[in-house]
Amino acid sequence: MTVQTPSPQGDRQPSDSQADDWLPIGGSALQHRIVDAAVELFYAQGFSATTVREIAAACGLTGGALYNHFSSKDHLLYVLVRDVHLRANAQMAEALASAAPDPVSQLSALVRFLVSHTAGSKKQSRVANREFTRLSGAHRQEVRTLRRQIRDRFGGILQAGVEQGIFTLPGGNDPGSAALIASTISVMCVHISEWQLENYSVGAEEFQNRYVEMALRMVGARLD
Amino acid sequence: MTVQTPSPQGDRQPSDSQADDWLPIGGSALQHRIVDAAVELFYAQGFSATTVREIAAACGLTGGALYNHFSSKDHLLYVLVRDVHLRANAQMAEALASAAPDPVSQLSALVRFLVSHTAGSKKQSRVANREFTRLSGAHRQEVRTLRRQIRDRFGGILQAGVEQGIFTLPGGNDPGSAALIASTISVMCVHISEWQLENYSVGAEEFQNRYVEMALRMVGARLD
Repeated sequence: MTVQTPSPQGDRQPSDSQADDWLPIGGSALQHRIVDAAVELFYAQGFSATTVREIAAACGLTGGALYNHFSSKDHLLYVLVRDVHLRANAQMAEALASAAPDPVSQLSALVRFLVSHTAGSKKQSRVANREFTRLSGAHRQEVRTLRRQIRDRFGGILQAGVEQGIFTLPGGNDPGSAALIASTISVMCVHISEWQLENYSVGAEEFQNRYVEMALRMVGARLD
Repeated sequence: MTVQTPSPQGDRQPSDSQADDWLPIGGSALQHRIVDAAVELFYAQGFSATTVREIAAACGLTGGALYNHFSSKDHLLYVLVRDVHLRANAQMAEALASAAPDPVSQLSALVRFLVSHTAGSKKQSRVANREFTRLSGAHRQEVRTLRRQIRDRFGGILQAGVEQGIFTLPGGNDPGSAALIASTISVMCVHISEWQLENYSVGAEEFQNRYVEMALRMVGARLD
């Protein structure tokens, strides 16, 4: 695999502090640059309208050189979307493990993570959430499974809260209600990637606090 | 303007009962077919990746004939997106006028309308909500203004509820909090256009009821 050093005009280069944000997971510096260029282009004009040639040109490669790393535009999208979800899911697990085990703390930690993560990686998040529908076959199924795992984290916490008598869900406390509200809370957080956050004169932490409060209200959390 | 009768193979034709759903507002039968074809294509593959030739072919026209009705693909998107918003806004005004004037009834009516409207016109809604960002200049500004008017309907009801001591908003009862939660409730409803509703074994009315309950909880509605 040909690996080039990042070009001097690149505005970002991998470093210890940034490495956690680069995609694909475990990729080379050049693969990071390719995915970064793809995210910019997919964000600006959509996956369908973007050509391999444009992605390659954006990181100073020929189309042929890009194919040394990704076998097609579809494959590049697949790796990008898959790794956005894999990383978010892993980071969620860490956030939950660091929080107290009660349902209110767990739900709060999950909302806080998802809001902060989405706001902090807006372009990756929007591309992943919009364009995963362009995947086909087994790749699409794999990403759908990852997305379901993320929703199920919310759903599991909601059901635990119901079982402990702490949450009272709209529409009843059955698993179906938990799934619907789990999706809605997840959507509410992730949709921040579509917003112009600068329109809201609220700091990042206060923003997270408000989403936590909305989520706790939605599940009817008994806070005492 | 050349107007042709709908082609025999068209699966939908304007009728008294359907005319309210056709776009553009006040358009001819042929213009309706063009916009309908555009919605299908933009939904399936995105605005950027769709050509005028494809839209024309999908309704049995030449590209040249399409230009008799819309001066460009951008113009077609503009008319489509504008009219989706104009119609939704007008129908919201009707829904609010038919509801009792208290903030709980007004918020419930607005959520119920938006959920039902989005679920009932999923493709139009998704195209409008995703692709309005592709508009430029004055057209984009015009649509942003329409979207703000829709959000302000929610915001106005929230502020009325606060003033009457019925709502208690997350983060405080100032207009900034009302704006943030108004956007969030609106997003929650409109995002249904991204869902596979068939995954949720809940009837349409029960679906609306749950969203109404979530929204009332989010604003801390005092129900007594």
